[in-house]
Amino acid sequence: MTPQLDSDGRLRHLLTLEGLPRSTMLQLLDRAGQIRDAAVGRVGKRTVLAGTAVCTLFFEPSTRTRSSFQLAAQRLGADVLNFDASTSSTRKGETARDTLKNLEAMGVRGFVVRHPDDGAVQALADVAGEGTALVNAGDGRSAHPTQGLLDMLTLRQARGGDFAKLKVLIVGDVKHSRVARSDLHALRALGAGEVRVCGPAALLPEADITAGCVVGTDFDAMLEGVDAVMMLRLQRERMEEGLVPSLEDYHARYGLTVERLGRAAPEAAVLHPGPINRGVEITDEVADGPQSWVLRQVANGVAVRMAVLEHLLG
Amino acid sequence: MTPQLDSDGRLRHLLTLEGLPRSTMLQLLDRAGQIRDAAVGRVGKRTVLAGTAVCTLFFEPSTRTRSSFQLAAQRLGADVLNFDASTSSTRKGETARDTLKNLEAMGVRGFVVRHPDDGAVQALADVAGEGTALVNAGDGRSAHPTQGLLDMLTLRQARGGDFAKLKVLIVGDVKHSRVARSDLHALRALGAGEVRVCGPAALLPEADITAGCVVGTDFDAMLEGVDAVMMLRLQRERMEEGLVPSLEDYHARYGLTVERLGRAAPEAAVLHPGPINRGVEITDEVADGPQSWVLRQVANGVAVRMAVLEHLLG
Amino acid sequence: MTPQLDSDGRLRHLLTLEGLPRSTMLQLLDRAGQIRDAAVGRVGKRTVLAGTAVCTLFFEPSTRTRSSFQLAAQRLGADVLNFDASTSSTRKGETARDTLKNLEAMGVRGFVVRHPDDGAVQALADVAGEGTALVNAGDGRSAHPTQGLLDMLTLRQARGGDFAKLKVLIVGDVKHSRVARSDLHALRALGAGEVRVCGPAALLPEADITAGCVVGTDFDAMLEGVDAVMMLRLQRERMEEGLVPSLEDYHARYGLTVERLGRAAPEAAVLHPGPINRGVEITDEVADGPQSWVLRQVANGVAVRMAVLEHLLG
Repeated sequence: MTPQLDSDGRLRHLLTLEGLPRSTMLQLLDRAGQIRDAAVGRVGKRTVLAGTAVCTLFFEPSTRTRSSFQLAAQRLGADVLNFDASTSSTRKGETARDTLKNLEAMGVRGFVVRHPDDGAVQALADVAGEGTALVNAGDGRSAHPTQGLLDMLTLRQARGGDFAKLKVLIVGDVKHSRVARSDLHALRALGAGEVRVCGPAALLPEADITAGCVVGTDFDAMLEGVDAVMMLRLQRERMEEGLVPSLEDYHARYGLTVERLGRAAPEAAVLHPGPINRGVEITDEVADGPQSWVLRQVANGVAVRMAVLEHLLG
Repeated sequence: MTPQLDSDGRLRHLLTLEGLPRSTMLQLLDRAGQIRDAAVGRVGKRTVLAGTAVCTLFFEPSTRTRSSFQLAAQRLGADVLNFDASTSSTRKGETARDTLKNLEAMGVRGFVVRHPDDGAVQALADVAGEGTALVNAGDGRSAHPTQGLLDMLTLRQARGGDFAKLKVLIVGDVKHSRVARSDLHALRALGAGEVRVCGPAALLPEADITAGCVVGTDFDAMLEGVDAVMMLRLQRERMEEGLVPSLEDYHARYGLTVERLGRAAPEAAVLHPGPINRGVEITDEVADGPQSWVLRQVANGVAVRMAVLEHLLG
Repeated sequence: MTPQLDSDGRLRHLLTLEGLPRSTMLQLLDRAGQIRDAAVGRVGKRTVLAGTAVCTLFFEPSTRTRSSFQLAAQRLGADVLNFDASTSSTRKGETARDTLKNLEAMGVRGFVVRHPDDGAVQALADVAGEGTALVNAGDGRSAHPTQGLLDMLTLRQARGGDFAKLKVLIVGDVKHSRVARSDLHALRALGAGEVRVCGPAALLPEADITAGCVVGTDFDAMLEGVDAVMMLRLQRERMEEGLVPSLEDYHARYGLTVERLGRAAPEAAVLHPGPINRGVEITDEVADGPQSWVLRQVANGVAVRMAVLEHLLG
């Protein structure tokens, strides 16, 4: 297994936040913050990746995440190739490994990879050549490191940089969520004061995932005094699997309303990775309200991805 | 409802030609003409939109219109993101409004939007942020303003700039056509001498749409002496709805042949928004003949879209 | 029929390698070699095609070939438009000719065209305007000239530039292969010492295709002493047509194994246009082994396409 860090500690791929040194994480967050703040004015064309080809290689469709990475790469001056692996030669029986090696031979240096299977991006990193860098844009339920980073950047923006003072609550289908896993890795590395995890019993993960966290099923109780509520997206297929009785029931127990949000600390930040199921995980009033950081998460996402691509390929 | 003009009369979005001041329309046409004529020589790379992200956001597929806008934006140096909203997160239940707000948060400043519903682009403009500009690339049967502008640019190129001297005939499914509506708005604003509207009775629109026009069903009679014939595309679904008996019948009554074209003024210009149903609306002989301006319409389309994007975002 | 060469012998389109002068072919190969070798270091952004629009116009899907051309065009600084003609206005009944003429009117100067029908790209070249250049990216079973060129560049890299000394074997479904045809045209023009063609009797082409070649069905016998083995991809539909009994049977008779490869000359080069059916045409051991040039073919493909686009449009 190829580690994502070189022997001299430099990040070569970004596969997971698990085990990523706190200093590297802070370096990426600082740089992303700089990029974001610079972009508040007029965004000039950057050229740091001019002549570098970056490929979004998606074995699972996701227009939104792909677009965020595409805009990040374009803004750095890269040539972007969108490779939808679900409708391509992979259908002719080509393996993911062969697809990667072929695109690498074509001169692609950066790969942004999404894959439905756990560990698939690591497996591709294992066969990648010397000058190639991979960014995991979500694999199975394992990891989604840039989402974790953008969530941390947003927490910092909303509540300041002292993570030791923060009480953070993660809510929803934690069991199947790669976002939750990456958030948990990041919160641990950054030394968050208290992390709570909440959801229906059937959607809570194995104990090792939430080691060190306060875990429970009572949303109202868990909300008390938290500085940030990180809502997760409810996947419709969980209902088909019988893990959630109905949308109405889910909303009644785990939907974030203005009333419920009152239990959290004043000005507590509300985060959601999107797309939101409005009226299910969050009411319109909360999603569009003053405590919602959802759209700033999206903006931070482009900044984080620029920082990551620049770091790996610049 | 957000007006497309700022309080100081500057165009902020281009949603419809209805009510667009004549001076603004002429300004856009003049600039598009300049761009087109400059491009006859070698087209250099422009940089007026370098570092600006433009998104084609299509809730209804249209490769041709999307390509025209994409080429226009690329030629201005913009970063282009093609977002096919019919195969994306909108399928996961995300609203059009959320899709727009998310892309805006990612830093997209210009949106080229096509939508099957009347008023949908206006509704998106209502929620767009300060620095964001929308171009309506066709909504429902309401408006297709850049098509209207490119048609006017073509009429000017074909028959000179004095619209008061022009007799123009619009032919076909006027009732369901956003192209016809935008053409009618433009012809009115530019003071066309006479506008005639012709088609099967079932495909003629409500009276207010054609106010001030000569309306009829007899194609031969209406052709007499006109300077330009603007043919519309026949949508196949009109036959399924029983509004048109058959392609043969339609062609017999409303197909433009060389013989019929003889009734119009000498060198009358033939326009069609494309794609042409050859042998239905127009015979090959007319479509490819000396009086056809169809391909020059297409060329003018890129120039008009460059002028519009430059005006809104430059 | 528009010839691909101007009256002064300059290449205007690249439609086929058949009849392409040896000097032009060598010029393209030399330039592609230069580009490839320069790119071994850091690839800077080239600007030779800045402001030039290149369209990949595919009437038959092929993500891999499209990507190779897209990367080549981007690296030359061109604006690239991907036009998937199988899901566009062609479905609304537009002819391929109208699609081309429209894109040309929009300012596209270079077209990379793939089409399932023999001669379709030539037919489009016949209607293309003055300043427009077409590259055939594969039509029917007729031609795939850039594949032919990249195979020659790879042979030169693997075995040196003296084609007269080379014994080359082409293996597989030669009958239906445009790759084989373009390879045969190129090998003839470059004066290859001996060309052998081998495959199941039902998949061998008409005699004129293999004029001057040694033709046979016994793979083991044909492999004796060759300097290069050019494997072809087995199309699954050949089995449905009953031309191949089964994958197992095909592999047993025509699959390249390490053992079989021992019959060829020492260090004989193995080529395959990809994507490989692993375990069918080639075993993993050979595909990933020291004599495999498959990934270098892919790298050479981008260089060849850059050389061709630069030659036609630069």
